[in-house]
Amino acid sequence: MADYHAPTRDLMFMLTEVLDDAHIRGLPDCDDYEPDTISAIVDEAGRFASSVLAPLNASGDAEGVDWSADGVTSASGFADAYDRFVEAGWNGLTGDPEHGGMGMPRVLGAATTELWNAANMSFALCPLLTASAVDALAHHGSDDLKAVYLDRLVSGEWTGCMDLTEPQAGSDLAQVRTRAEPDGEAWRLFGQKIYITWGEHDMAGNIVHLVLARLPDAPAGVKGISLFLVPKYIPDADGNPGERNDMRCASVEHKLGIHACPTCTMTYGEDGRGALGWLVGEANRGLAHMFTMMNAARHKMGVQGLGVADRAYQQALAHAREREQGGAAIVEHADVKRMLLSMRSRIDVLRALCLDSAAAMDVAERSDDDAERAAAQTRVDVLTPIVKGWGTELGVSLADTGIQIHGGMGYIEETGAAQPLRDVRIAPIYEGTNGIQAIDLVGRKLLRDEGRGMRALIADMRATADGRADGANPHPALAEGLDLLEQATDTLLAAGRDAAMANAFNYLMLCGTVVGAWYAARIADVAQAALAAGTDETDFYEARQACARFYVRQVLPDARGYAARIEGGADAIDTVDAARHL
Amino acid sequence: MADYHAPTRDLMFMLTEVLDDAHIRGLPDCDDYEPDTISAIVDEAGRFASSVLAPLNASGDAEGVDWSADGVTSASGFADAYDRFVEAGWNGLTGDPEHGGMGMPRVLGAATTELWNAANMSFALCPLLTASAVDALAHHGSDDLKAVYLDRLVSGEWTGCMDLTEPQAGSDLAQVRTRAEPDGEAWRLFGQKIYITWGEHDMAGNIVHLVLARLPDAPAGVKGISLFLVPKYIPDADGNPGERNDMRCASVEHKLGIHACPTCTMTYGEDGRGALGWLVGEANRGLAHMFTMMNAARHKMGVQGLGVADRAYQQALAHAREREQGGAAIVEHADVKRMLLSMRSRIDVLRALCLDSAAAMDVAERSDDDAERAAAQTRVDVLTPIVKGWGTELGVSLADTGIQIHGGMGYIEETGAAQPLRDVRIAPIYEGTNGIQAIDLVGRKLLRDEGRGMRALIADMRATADGRADGANPHPALAEGLDLLEQATDTLLAAGRDAAMANAFNYLMLCGTVVGAWYAARIADVAQAALAAGTDETDFYEARQACARFYVRQVLPDARGYAARIEGGADAIDTVDAARHL
Repeated sequence: MADYHAPTRDLMFMLTEVLDDAHIRGLPDCDDYEPDTISAIVDEAGRFASSVLAPLNASGDAEGVDWSADGVTSASGFADAYDRFVEAGWNGLTGDPEHGGMGMPRVLGAATTELWNAANMSFALCPLLTASAVDALAHHGSDDLKAVYLDRLVSGEWTGCMDLTEPQAGSDLAQVRTRAEPDGEAWRLFGQKIYITWGEHDMAGNIVHLVLARLPDAPAGVKGISLFLVPKYIPDADGNPGERNDMRCASVEHKLGIHACPTCTMTYGEDGRGALGWLVGEANRGLAHMFTMMNAARHKMGVQGLGVADRAYQQALAHAREREQGGAAIVEHADVKRMLLSMRSRIDVLRALCLDSAAAMDVAERSDDDAERAAAQTRVDVLTPIVKGWGTELGVSLADTGIQIHGGMGYIEETGAAQPLRDVRIAPIYEGTNGIQAIDLVGRKLLRDEGRGMRALIADMRATADGRADGANPHPALAEGLDLLEQATDTLLAAGRDAAMANAFNYLMLCGTVVGAWYAARIADVAQAALAAGTDETDFYEARQACARFYVRQVLPDARGYAARIEGGADAIDTVDAARHL
Repeated sequence: MADYHAPTRDLMFMLTEVLDDAHIRGLPDCDDYEPDTISAIVDEAGRFASSVLAPLNASGDAEGVDWSADGVTSASGFADAYDRFVEAGWNGLTGDPEHGGMGMPRVLGAATTELWNAANMSFALCPLLTASAVDALAHHGSDDLKAVYLDRLVSGEWTGCMDLTEPQAGSDLAQVRTRAEPDGEAWRLFGQKIYITWGEHDMAGNIVHLVLARLPDAPAGVKGISLFLVPKYIPDADGNPGERNDMRCASVEHKLGIHACPTCTMTYGEDGRGALGWLVGEANRGLAHMFTMMNAARHKMGVQGLGVADRAYQQALAHAREREQGGAAIVEHADVKRMLLSMRSRIDVLRALCLDSAAAMDVAERSDDDAERAAAQTRVDVLTPIVKGWGTELGVSLADTGIQIHGGMGYIEETGAAQPLRDVRIAPIYEGTNGIQAIDLVGRKLLRDEGRGMRALIADMRATADGRADGANPHPALAEGLDLLEQATDTLLAAGRDAAMANAFNYLMLCGTVVGAWYAARIADVAQAALAAGTDETDFYEARQACARFYVRQVLPDARGYAARIEGGADAIDTVDAARHL
């Protein structure tokens, strides 16, 4: 497999040239976010990703994890790599300084998250889940819980995971049955969870599970679910890992990909004692508490799609440069070039989207201007399902294209060409399937606020499109795409809820495709300005322009298809009787 | 994994209601092709596929094949299933009666090929390759070779395979280096081939390799390649397998899918003697001879895409009916229904395309009307890259959708949801990558004859669209699709060759998408007529209408995107410098 080259130049281009880093720097406690600091961190993270994590990617895939009744042994080298990850302070990059974190903005966290996932998606899921646990605990945990757990989770000394799914409760968490019984000020949990990512392993001193369960008197449905913290080892009086809790990993799944990531079935209370846990936040508000961190977690899934797609692109490009057929390296063949451009052009705009939306989170969380914070939060709300849904669809699609570019070698596991597809195929499914993302986008983010958030986004994009009418730029194409999006938005707002839902996925894809063109236009502008000003990086900026041009000419046309589906109405779906016609 | 239900009703609908079976019956030696016979054969093949082949699909995937220096042991049950396949006469269904075949038309062969591939793609590849060897030998083999080999290959007592690829010679077979040295009237081969499907196994008494190699004095490039027949065991005077030939399977590949299908590296002449082989056809004409059977082989790849897609659909539908979330089976959820319809509607039209194009092969091969034969051959030439290219793209895309419908379970290997994707992912790569198919379509089938074959197809489709102007039917949408296709055809014919090649893949996908709408319109017409005439299969015919409607409303819109890419020109690809911009 080709080595992983961290795209540090591309990240710096997006972070400091396309996006407004000065604005982030102006936020409270963000004055360290200087170009030199950003560059140093991106470079160092790139080195760590390519030299420590990437070399374990193929071996971890081949070896997988080893389960026994005593626990899970991670793939060779993973525990050591995790130690180094924690020692280097990567786990705490964006963590609260009060709990030992570096307090860096999320936009920089998104950049490093891309690197970890591109280098080794199985590994990256471990700190990713810990970060979710940190978010949940920081927002809703009692001071006592925070005192014991938060510093260790921020540093990564302990890892965190989210125990949500049960066999009958997947997308529909109202069906959760795991129950909690009172035991003094704590609780005893009984039940079973499945698909718990990094729920059990040997890389850290303790594993902190955030578990959804029901109190004895809880109302049925979503309003009777509470969130509990359940540690693998119960901390002693000094906060050190003590007695083993009554919680076990009953098995790990045999999956299509991310073989080095243990996906665990967890049982609580098998010994009869019940797993000792503590309530996080209010009773019966567990689902709402969990949604606090959902934006951040879902955003990271889109970044994961980006990272794996870029890895797949690097592999495909290396192959295409080396492989000769018909008297030339296949990278010169028109159709191979088309495939590579279809990957690279999408990667550029997805990277811009991922970083820009993370920057919006920073504004939403940190700005001292109420109106700016609210506007940024609305933007985050609208973009999050697009980042997750469209970003992970791109991840799968681009990984698939990467295989195709390899020809016959793409199908041979030893080349490593298939691993990105096998790995990233989970991303459109977990953290809310992309169907759920589409429903979230259309139901919560479009219909509920009568389109205000979406119209604000369209207005911003329109400003970019109007900014330049130069035919050589992507702006006219962006304007056409915006017309389609505006029309589709009106159509869905006028349609009934059911009709809107039937086309929700098409709308999600339309949004992603048009938003991508927005970033293509902005990238092209920056590249053009740099070339006009004179630069010794001519190739780099020309390449950005070429990708932007390819995007609007050869990718954005998809918008016509998605828009036509939406304009065609929902009849073709609604009128079908599932029992008789499928 | 859900059981496989052979889609016998769907096949009969296409074979006897949508397509013109009377026309096939009117061809020479096709008068046995009666509805009752067709039905009996389809039913019996369906039973064999579902009861014998399908139960070995998951186990074969898990077990794989076993290589040793002595040869390859097939997965448990495969050898027995192959014996039964041969005994039941399936291998000879479309074979020449002079060589023991049943002489059935290829359209019926395509129907059974779908069933074998849906039930067990790894298994199905074995008779599929034998059929290619039969085609090559029947067209180009000497009478002596035919006498020894053809009956046994037609019956399936011996299997055949195609040894084309070498490490440096994939899409570019001009690079073939395997050499043949004269030995009396025969030849001795030396060299190595890779990716030889079913090149070695334990299921048959002999394995007949058709090998591309160079004579000592052969010109360089494609005009110096000859085709040889090289048997695993050299037949003795009575035609029985005798001495082991100097040809070995050096290894089998570890692949993403089709684990039960041995993909072999073959070596010739390792013992120093050279592998004994006989020239098939003329010296230095091997590549041309091989292309004789290419249409049939490539067509079968499209059918493979169809078969695996239907299997994936059946699994996804079974899951969606059983899985409850949110108080209802997920099959009732709008987005799941959308995904299922996106699968089923494409399967309907792809099945029609596969069968209709196979029927065109029958006409091209059997009609005693020269003009009809020539017109049918032109149609076959145009449709073959579409069947292979678009059909296998659909195979991958639909298998991927099948995983998504399974949610989290789609990622767990034990559910079997991922196997169709892993298996079918090779189909866009082998027998000429889909990039090669696109070049074939645009270069050989469009530009070379100045668009005559394509315009004839468009005229036939236009006749269907004009036949009905009823707004409730798919015909107006088909007419719009044809406008796009006609415009794109003009654009590519007017563009230079390089520009046309850059958009060749988009054109291939545009053709497939619009041709699909043609079949959707024809299916809708037949279903409407049946409903109007009164039927006790209301659900079935309504379902066909529903799928046709979904196709033109929710699938055909992709044509707008492909057309826009083509109209946008090739600049976005051509002007990119692979060395500096990728």
